[in-house]
Amino acid sequence: MGEKRRWTRRQFLEMVGAAGGSTAVYQSMVAMGLMKTPKAYAGPPRLPKESGRGKTVLILGAGVAGLTAAFELSKAGYECRILEAAPRAGGRNYTVRSGDFIYQEGKPRQVCMFDTDQYLNAGPGRIPYHHQAVLAYCRELDVALQVYVMENRAALFQTPDAFNGQSRANRRIANDTRGRIAEMLAKVVNQNVLDEELLGDDKENLLSLLQSFGQLDEEYQYKYSPRYQGNWRAGYVIEPNVETPGLPEPELSFTQLLDSQFWLHRFYQPEDYEWQATMFQPVGGMDKIIDGFLRRIRSLVCLNQQVVGLQNNEDGVMVRVQDTQTGAEDYMTADFCISNMPLPILDQVIENSGEDSGFDPFFKEAVAAVPFAPTCKVGWQAEERFWENEANRIYGGISWTNQTITQIWYPSADFFTQKGVLTGCYNFGDNAVDFGDLDLESRLLKAMDQATRVHPEFPDYVPLDLGLSIAWQQVPHQFGGWADYQGVDPRYYERLLQSDRHFWVTGDQVSYLPGWQEGAILSAHHVIEQVSQVVSGVWVAAKRGKIREVPRGEHQLGMP
Amino acid sequence: MGEKRRWTRRQFLEMVGAAGGSTAVYQSMVAMGLMKTPKAYAGPPRLPKESGRGKTVLILGAGVAGLTAAFELSKAGYECRILEAAPRAGGRNYTVRSGDFIYQEGKPRQVCMFDTDQYLNAGPGRIPYHHQAVLAYCRELDVALQVYVMENRAALFQTPDAFNGQSRANRRIANDTRGRIAEMLAKVVNQNVLDEELLGDDKENLLSLLQSFGQLDEEYQYKYSPRYQGNWRAGYVIEPNVETPGLPEPELSFTQLLDSQFWLHRFYQPEDYEWQATMFQPVGGMDKIIDGFLRRIRSLVCLNQQVVGLQNNEDGVMVRVQDTQTGAEDYMTADFCISNMPLPILDQVIENSGEDSGFDPFFKEAVAAVPFAPTCKVGWQAEERFWENEANRIYGGISWTNQTITQIWYPSADFFTQKGVLTGCYNFGDNAVDFGDLDLESRLLKAMDQATRVHPEFPDYVPLDLGLSIAWQQVPHQFGGWADYQGVDPRYYERLLQSDRHFWVTGDQVSYLPGWQEGAILSAHHVIEQVSQVVSGVWVAAKRGKIREVPRGEHQLGMP
Repeated sequence: MGEKRRWTRRQFLEMVGAAGGSTAVYQSMVAMGLMKTPKAYAGPPRLPKESGRGKTVLILGAGVAGLTAAFELSKAGYECRILEAAPRAGGRNYTVRSGDFIYQEGKPRQVCMFDTDQYLNAGPGRIPYHHQAVLAYCRELDVALQVYVMENRAALFQTPDAFNGQSRANRRIANDTRGRIAEMLAKVVNQNVLDEELLGDDKENLLSLLQSFGQLDEEYQYKYSPRYQGNWRAGYVIEPNVETPGLPEPELSFTQLLDSQFWLHRFYQPEDYEWQATMFQPVGGMDKIIDGFLRRIRSLVCLNQQVVGLQNNEDGVMVRVQDTQTGAEDYMTADFCISNMPLPILDQVIENSGEDSGFDPFFKEAVAAVPFAPTCKVGWQAEERFWENEANRIYGGISWTNQTITQIWYPSADFFTQKGVLTGCYNFGDNAVDFGDLDLESRLLKAMDQATRVHPEFPDYVPLDLGLSIAWQQVPHQFGGWADYQGVDPRYYERLLQSDRHFWVTGDQVSYLPGWQEGAILSAHHVIEQVSQVVSGVWVAAKRGKIREVPRGEHQLGMP
Repeated sequence: MGEKRRWTRRQFLEMVGAAGGSTAVYQSMVAMGLMKTPKAYAGPPRLPKESGRGKTVLILGAGVAGLTAAFELSKAGYECRILEAAPRAGGRNYTVRSGDFIYQEGKPRQVCMFDTDQYLNAGPGRIPYHHQAVLAYCRELDVALQVYVMENRAALFQTPDAFNGQSRANRRIANDTRGRIAEMLAKVVNQNVLDEELLGDDKENLLSLLQSFGQLDEEYQYKYSPRYQGNWRAGYVIEPNVETPGLPEPELSFTQLLDSQFWLHRFYQPEDYEWQATMFQPVGGMDKIIDGFLRRIRSLVCLNQQVVGLQNNEDGVMVRVQDTQTGAEDYMTADFCISNMPLPILDQVIENSGEDSGFDPFFKEAVAAVPFAPTCKVGWQAEERFWENEANRIYGGISWTNQTITQIWYPSADFFTQKGVLTGCYNFGDNAVDFGDLDLESRLLKAMDQATRVHPEFPDYVPLDLGLSIAWQQVPHQFGGWADYQGVDPRYYERLLQSDRHFWVTGDQVSYLPGWQEGAILSAHHVIEQVSQVVSGVWVAAKRGKIREVPRGEHQLGMP
């Protein structure tokens, strides 16, 4: 019995899932009566009107979660104040524009030299269609949205391991691969190898499916046939026009395709749920979401106020704050405190607050247990959108490469205008560490050199001095891109979902959507619901105390 | 030798292609020195300035080709006039707005009752990224473009043959199918069935590819594993949030997937070259392209002028034209005549012009040989964008069904606004004939009934009296959607690419891109280049005379 009590509902379902696939999970859910859980986003918690009257809340950090919490709590009458260490609100939601600065520890300050109508989304750059909380706030805050193009069959893949190191169009790689896979499977089906598992009409249907799936001809071969006229998925060397039905692209060698290992370099990322069509972006930059919040609650945000100490008392929180401009320190108190600071920074602050800070040891352990992941981006303002010219015809989307830069994003807006900003690098893990460690000039030289392997004409259109780079692991008040729960015991995560006295943590860092604004908003909702429960007296506080043995969990939380 | 002379270069290449696939064609092209043919669209023919001074051109029909020809010829000094039978320019490029009429033979006139900011693209609705001529004119004519969403993983497929007749999300069908295909192929690869053709690292690479391609787990099974957390391609019954990593959609039964025969109902159309990402649409309706032309050459267009007779003389053309408002007839002459009328209508006019009309018999035969294809669309103005609500989350894209309506388009613009217009039917072949034959009310009842099978909530949001239908085969001055070259001897096509004396035909109907505006523009360019060659004296006229035996060609031109 003691053993059994350890299983949370979630863990149980994961166990069922591991044993029987998601159908089994689904059936168990139905059996457990959990299918009544609402499928769809139901909006922010409905806090009773005026329920927060007379209650004070200090929010540490003006990221998306902090802004959401302040916005919603204010509606219910709470008196909120946001302390933000940086000179601007938004946190990782940062759209870099002309005259903006990029600060990184150990690096000189960069100034953005873009034209006034150009920008780089240095943090988040896209919104999935199922991130309904973000989309709902965009509506509420009058943030106009447009389509973000994630998958573009004209974009490229490049590796030195195949195709003589030359880029190949996505449409060729994607469709030649589909064709070869369909061809091989059709071959063995026709050799009756799978007869045992293909019952009834299955075999005939499967062959018909493979023909359509892989664009196979009547003999189940992947090769051009006149019936694909004008529509050969891999594209054309000479486009169909008045005088010719077009000359189709020759098939890529399958061995070359396999040697390229393109699939290990995020080629199929646009199939994944988080990046499936239809994706969105705010018109004019991701920071339009921050602007939207600020139009409502700008007066609640105090910039340049760095939290340097915390005292977590039974009935409230005291915050020691330093003005980063003057160095002056101040103390502030509130009934409730919600920390939107990255957990590693909160950990430092709690450490600096001494043994008597009043924090629960288990909570402190949990805060300390979650590292942040390194990630870098590069922005290039091009003098001309060469990627949109007749030779490239790339409108939005992403080219992939096995190089350090990992990917190049093309702008999904203002097509056919003259200039544009490319995201010239977006990387992770060791690539991000190595790239971030370079000095600023070396970063740009490297990113330029690697971009030139994808687009040989790149340096003709992109001036080196209009490049910008950001390594989020070096950015003050951030020190990373998102919480990395790989190898972190899930009990720490569960602990962070509950307050320590009247102190909560919030942000995408305490959600199953790390790195996504949706996670930040849902976390803020989760926290303010608990705050409201405390106020209304229905809240049961988390048990305090240390867990002694923390095995490294087999179950790991994911990364974006 | 006599046999050999029959082979055109194109036919030769097709023969090579049939024998050896497109790689062989490509190699032959290189060997023949044809690879110098420009890959990319090079713009309209550069007609010498003032070269058309003093020359008159009558253009019959203000479709995209007619407008293009008049626009370009005018630049070179030709005196152009466009005679348009309908009360508006644009031809099949027709965006139906409040107060607009839809005329169909044998049917009462429909009046569009949409709100003023709503519209239906009743003709073309999207522009592929490789239709560089259309895109170039959009730039030249200041037509703003935005992304048209063709593929949307949240859109639906519905058939009575599977899933109890209920709709299933594209993300489930697409990804469960990929998963099953990858799983089956991985299985036989692991059983060493394909060892003979997988050399070196190919086998290991292929297995790795299949894992990524089909989202297979470590045992090459298609089933949910925690490493896909938040990213299960088929989506979630319960979305990942703060408290749960989400409950993934259960896999669809593979037999049900096969029984549904979804691939026979255009499900993979977004993979085809003509519909691959990134597609475009003009902001505010496809007719913005027509507006763009009219801003430049409105004064050249004479509306309500129906051509009723033609006299094709050696040195020019005489056109008998009837004013459709007054019935008055007039004769007009010009040095050159370019017919943008649909070929079946031109055929009627030539027939009506009598034996002495001066047309070459072979040319006349060719004109008569090309039928037009039936196609229908339905437009619905919805009171509320129910497809964008939390339960559906469909932003643009297309749902497919095996029913007569074939497909439902969701608007790719003005997301998150209240109202919107759905394309509630777009069909072809027998479906289009049957649907077109219904009376107007029956069409809407049928389309509503079928849409309700895709979206059970459809009638709650879509008033029947805000529906519109159009069967292009019944529209005066059109009588079809595009030229259908199935079974038409290719020599007729070749003949139509050359003038008969000073008389040319133009339009997408004389291109390898039937049904596309790109074909219309490229055809106009083709014709005006020939006109210019006649003026400059380098033109060699086509041989006149009838070909006696016209076998039905094995090679057939395609359909859109």
